[in-house]
Amino acid sequence: MNLKNIRIVLVNPLYASNVGSVCRVMKNMGLNDLALVNPRCDVTTHECKQWACHANNVLKRRREFKALTAAVADCGLVAGTTARIGLYREHARTIRDWAPRLLAATSTGRVALVFGSEDNGLSVDDLALCTQFVRIPSSARYSSLNLAQAVMVCCYELFSGTKRFKIPTERTPEAPSGMREQMFKMWRQSLLDIGFMQEQKADHMMLGLRRIFSRGQLSENDVRIMLGIARQTQWCAREMRRLGGALPPPKN
Amino acid sequence: MNLKNIRIVLVNPLYASNVGSVCRVMKNMGLNDLALVNPRCDVTTHECKQWACHANNVLKRRREFKALTAAVADCGLVAGTTARIGLYREHARTIRDWAPRLLAATSTGRVALVFGSEDNGLSVDDLALCTQFVRIPSSARYSSLNLAQAVMVCCYELFSGTKRFKIPTERTPEAPSGMREQMFKMWRQSLLDIGFMQEQKADHMMLGLRRIFSRGQLSENDVRIMLGIARQTQWCAREMRRLGGALPPPKN
Repeated sequence: MNLKNIRIVLVNPLYASNVGSVCRVMKNMGLNDLALVNPRCDVTTHECKQWACHANNVLKRRREFKALTAAVADCGLVAGTTARIGLYREHARTIRDWAPRLLAATSTGRVALVFGSEDNGLSVDDLALCTQFVRIPSSARYSSLNLAQAVMVCCYELFSGTKRFKIPTERTPEAPSGMREQMFKMWRQSLLDIGFMQEQKADHMMLGLRRIFSRGQLSENDVRIMLGIARQTQWCAREMRRLGGALPPPKN
Repeated sequence: MNLKNIRIVLVNPLYASNVGSVCRVMKNMGLNDLALVNPRCDVTTHECKQWACHANNVLKRRREFKALTAAVADCGLVAGTTARIGLYREHARTIRDWAPRLLAATSTGRVALVFGSEDNGLSVDDLALCTQFVRIPSSARYSSLNLAQAVMVCCYELFSGTKRFKIPTERTPEAPSGMREQMFKMWRQSLLDIGFMQEQKADHMMLGLRRIFSRGQLSENDVRIMLGIARQTQWCAREMRRLGGALPPPKN
């Protein structure tokens, strides 16, 4: 898989802001090959660069073509995005469905993802050049995505498909049962000490606390924090008694 | 699962264009509950409405709050997006990983997805309110997404997670073997008739053609087209002979 072999092709884009946004989206998702077919906007403006933000290098190395045939001439697979109904609809798949196929093809050659203009989409002639038809899931109530947003969804699926993005996992492991039991024992005692519960209701209450703490993960660090709270609570209750205080009588 | 129970919360957004874009993204993905916390831009401008495009109803029904606590007070799960490293990093999951949990929670109550501002992201105080931390996969070379693009990826994952979007499947079924064999038989004859191949090489060539046609799907409609081509080719070869023509001598 080689994301550098994926070319984003915009046919007749109308707004420089969208072209700039597409550059940012591409860099965000590890792509850098942008082709424009007869753009109807000036992509050398300050506005366009502003939307590209820190992806000005993608904007700079873009290439412009007079025809889609030329822009994709060296590409093996050519995937066209379309919401058009008719001949192609039944052959369309979501970008998530196509991603593995498109990514596999990048190992041996170039792959193009083609997007139509903001006002017209891709023409029948454009779609004829495509080997794959791509649909982006969207609400039936408003299915038309902004151009740069459509590019984002596609690039995001391809980037995710590489499975290269990993979030660092928990450094502290799940606390072992012995440590957890020590915590519950100390909490039981501290809750008795402050008069939160009485001995005959303690076991029932502790089942409730066990349920709360079992719902998520509890690391060793977490247990140490909870142990510290119980220890300090017990100290506080002892001090209160030492100073002549007493628990109020039980409520029920 | 109820997408209408998902609230998108933007904290201190800076650009009206982004707020407008977020409205469009939300409607594209079946959401409509937008909350703004102390926006620093005028969301009543023409620019904002232009970016919202046909999602002006989402913009109109937005609510504004003075503090994040108020904006999420009625929400069960509160998911915060962050690229921040430190305390939260190890607890973050991708939006695709969180989507099932967040969607499940929408069946019984409200869920908030919170996004920080373009320049500052979410503060430590904001993150303290969150029950879930969300990371969006992106390239290490340029990991910072445009605000509306970040909202898109999250909303897209939630919408996709409902599995409600279905592309219509092929109407014509895969052609049955008998029909396919008739097609290969007619193609074999027509390729002989026009002198494309000679009898002793025909079987080998037909294996090549079978391989080409087996790589994709072949519907009954497709087979009918290919049958028609073979039929017409045979007619053409007959006419050529009738008019006194002859095949050139074999090349090898």
